[in-house]
Amino acid sequence: MNTPRIAFWFDLGSPYSHLSAARIEALADKAAVQVDWYPFLLGPIFKSMGWKDSPFNEQPLKRDYMWLDVARQARKYGMAFKRPSVFPRRALSATRLAVAGEGAPWLPEFCRRVMAQNFVDDLEIDSLASIESTLGGLVEDSQALIEMANHESTKQRTRQRTEQAIQLGIFGAPTFFVHNEMFWGDDRLEDAIRHAQLIKSREVCLAPGDTE
Amino acid sequence: MNTPRIAFWFDLGSPYSHLSAARIEALADKAAVQVDWYPFLLGPIFKSMGWKDSPFNEQPLKRDYMWLDVARQARKYGMAFKRPSVFPRRALSATRLAVAGEGAPWLPEFCRRVMAQNFVDDLEIDSLASIESTLGGLVEDSQALIEMANHESTKQRTRQRTEQAIQLGIFGAPTFFVHNEMFWGDDRLEDAIRHAQLIKSREVCLAPGDTE
Repeated sequence: MNTPRIAFWFDLGSPYSHLSAARIEALADKAAVQVDWYPFLLGPIFKSMGWKDSPFNEQPLKRDYMWLDVARQARKYGMAFKRPSVFPRRALSATRLAVAGEGAPWLPEFCRRVMAQNFVDDLEIDSLASIESTLGGLVEDSQALIEMANHESTKQRTRQRTEQAIQLGIFGAPTFFVHNEMFWGDDRLEDAIRHAQLIKSREVCLAPGDTE
Repeated sequence: MNTPRIAFWFDLGSPYSHLSAARIEALADKAAVQVDWYPFLLGPIFKSMGWKDSPFNEQPLKRDYMWLDVARQARKYGMAFKRPSVFPRRALSATRLAVAGEGAPWLPEFCRRVMAQNFVDDLEIDSLASIESTLGGLVEDSQALIEMANHESTKQRTRQRTEQAIQLGIFGAPTFFVHNEMFWGDDRLEDAIRHAQLIKSREVCLAPGDTE
């Protein structure tokens, strides 16, 4: 029997992606669901939607509430959290490194470390020094990986990920897919995992558009 | 001992307010929390934030996902739901009637009926005929109430509600308040009720700004 899968699309600089990255493995393990991690960049997507900045920054009221909400959710989940002094933080090099590591066993931990640097330690996440130290103890040859992340082919794959996200109809992060069914936001993580389980148990098999 | 209270700010034309209006009384009863219903109009608030229309309508991707999400949530909660053919529906007269009925025992049921007309039966909700039929069996003298709703003092109170919502920092609906702590969205209804209980049990007493 096939293991049910959930695709986890996230941006390393997104606060709600941070919450999901910390929670998804435990929830998925318990449900015997496999997680596929897809790093991508929200910036170009927001630009394509006509926003110059994070939509949170375009509306001060919503931005202030968002930080209060993220702090409250983190506390509920037992996670450390500190509002970063810079938002959104540049994460292009770190994202390329994550794309270079897609499918590798160290990728989830690398991403969680980058996000914790941003959302717990309030540190810059995109410098070479920061990426090198984040990789510490995770991979055997961090230099080779950093070179690979800077290679033209990885840059192109990173752009392709964003293109693919646009094609999939992604407009925010985190976004989860179970087959063709989309779930947006950390608040829908449990529902997405339940959907993967239900599909597996064949009690439900929804096609997109079947939901209304 | 004081009964803990939750303030429920909602717009009769808001899909996520519809979900909360259907769920809040049962959840609050179970937790021995009292609900105060505050009808208001989101339209002027969106206008003050620089949007001409519902933010859902400004972003087609987000709009399409929102309807899928509302349908999925309704199914999860065991509620009937149909995507309305007109959105957002004009609800000025119905909102004025709800403002005229603030604190009255029939108000929650009136609001739920209006929302079900919009989000289940896909019917217009703001005509005199519609409001009259919605009030059927709920109040003794619906004509007197309709007159009161059209009175200048009620119109003014409706405008004041929206002003008050702006002052409170409300930028969407539903929004819940427990003391000064704000919770936005149907997804936070359970957390808001839990917060009201915790305050009551004096295990936690958060001041605003205490949360980060």
